[in-house]
Amino acid sequence: MKISARNILKGTIVDVTKGQTTAHVKIDIGGSIVTSSITNQAVDDLKLAKGQTAYAIIKASNVMIAVD
Amino acid sequence: MKISARNILKGTIVDVTKGQTTAHVKIDIGGSIVTSSITNQAVDDLKLAKGQTAYAIIKASNVMIAVD
Amino acid sequence: MKISARNILKGTIVDVTKGQTTAHVKIDIGGSIVTSSITNQAVDDLKLAKGQTAYAIIKASNVMIAVD
Amino acid sequence: MKISARNILKGTIVDVTKGQTTAHVKIDIGGSIVTSSITNQAVDDLKLAKGQTAYAIIKASNVMIAVD
Amino acid sequence: MKISARNILKGTIVDVTKGQTTAHVKIDIGGSIVTSSITNQAVDDLKLAKGQTAYAIIKASNVMIAVD
Amino acid sequence: MKISARNILKGTIVDVTKGQTTAHVKIDIGGSIVTSSITNQAVDDLKLAKGQTAYAIIKASNVMIAVD
Repeated sequence: MKISARNILKGTIVDVTKGQTTAHVKIDIGGSIVTSSITNQAVDDLKLAKGQTAYAIIKASNVMIAVD
Repeated sequence: MKISARNILKGTIVDVTKGQTTAHVKIDIGGSIVTSSITNQAVDDLKLAKGQTAYAIIKASNVMIAVD
Repeated sequence: MKISARNILKGTIVDVTKGQTTAHVKIDIGGSIVTSSITNQAVDDLKLAKGQTAYAIIKASNVMIAVD
Repeated sequence: MKISARNILKGTIVDVTKGQTTAHVKIDIGGSIVTSSITNQAVDDLKLAKGQTAYAIIKASNVMIAVD
Repeated sequence: MKISARNILKGTIVDVTKGQTTAHVKIDIGGSIVTSSITNQAVDDLKLAKGQTAYAIIKASNVMIAVD
Repeated sequence: MKISARNILKGTIVDVTKGQTTAHVKIDIGGSIVTSSITNQAVDDLKLAKGQTAYAIIKASNVMIAVD
């Protein structure tokens, strides 16, 4: 499956924390940690676990820019 | 200003393309290109230009995870 | 590739309209038309065209609920 | 009230699960199940319950497209 | 129609600018100007025009917090 | 830091409620209450508390418009 989202960043899962409905997954992407907030069901469905290779996927319209 | 967004990735702007209302800005973050879709007004207001140091900012709830 | 997004709706592309930077793609999903706003680059990259089978993908945190 | 969101899909609520702050609501839309992640407060305020007719509302900029 | 979005801010439209596919609408909400990026089709469909009373609607998961 | 997000609304935090992973923060902005859903980690990191001056930050593409 090929997706329209412009940002597909490959990395390694370094943490999975589940709450009651919402989970936080952290991925190490070339030394930067990217945090994702997804449903517990997605974590279970994709069997996400620490150490796994995974992608952070972000639609371009959800990326802001900042300068110092 | 300190923001709640969990993902603040530092890089260098490699492209700024303006449309009639919406612009696309590309940032090189450690070798990965991140694409952002923002308003032309934001580009003008922040004086965004190729070669500039900038940050891609992404709320955790806008990051999805994928696996092969 | 398997994605965390909870909503993956299969349909047929019925319209692709490109602007200067942003395109609108309409998919017929079981009789309902779903409209998507994505980058022109995504349209080109995925070679999206009328008549094609495609999926509308929506993260659960981007779905609101309304009642009459 | 008429809203700018391009996607207003009518269906029937098939599940409401509340966490500590965030709830998941599932709507059957013509046989497809759409999952929504909203606040518990919204669930209480709209009195959302299984069996109710409801709408899934999605802004076009939050819809991605994928192809096989 | 009653919507789950937690933020419904009443104001007056002060500007509507259409691009090729995407429009920007500005609303004065108690002296603060809120900018919205929506489809041209939504502008046409709702007949949005300067001087009109309107609401800015924002899902809670799309609001970030910052401090100085 | 200067951000591309078009909507930066100053106010006072009136409530912070943490769940297991996701928190809700309410800000009074000139008499309107704006609700934000962010990670607990952001609440801790920014030391958000009732009575504090803070900003609600919203990307223009996440603002919808409605009319009566």
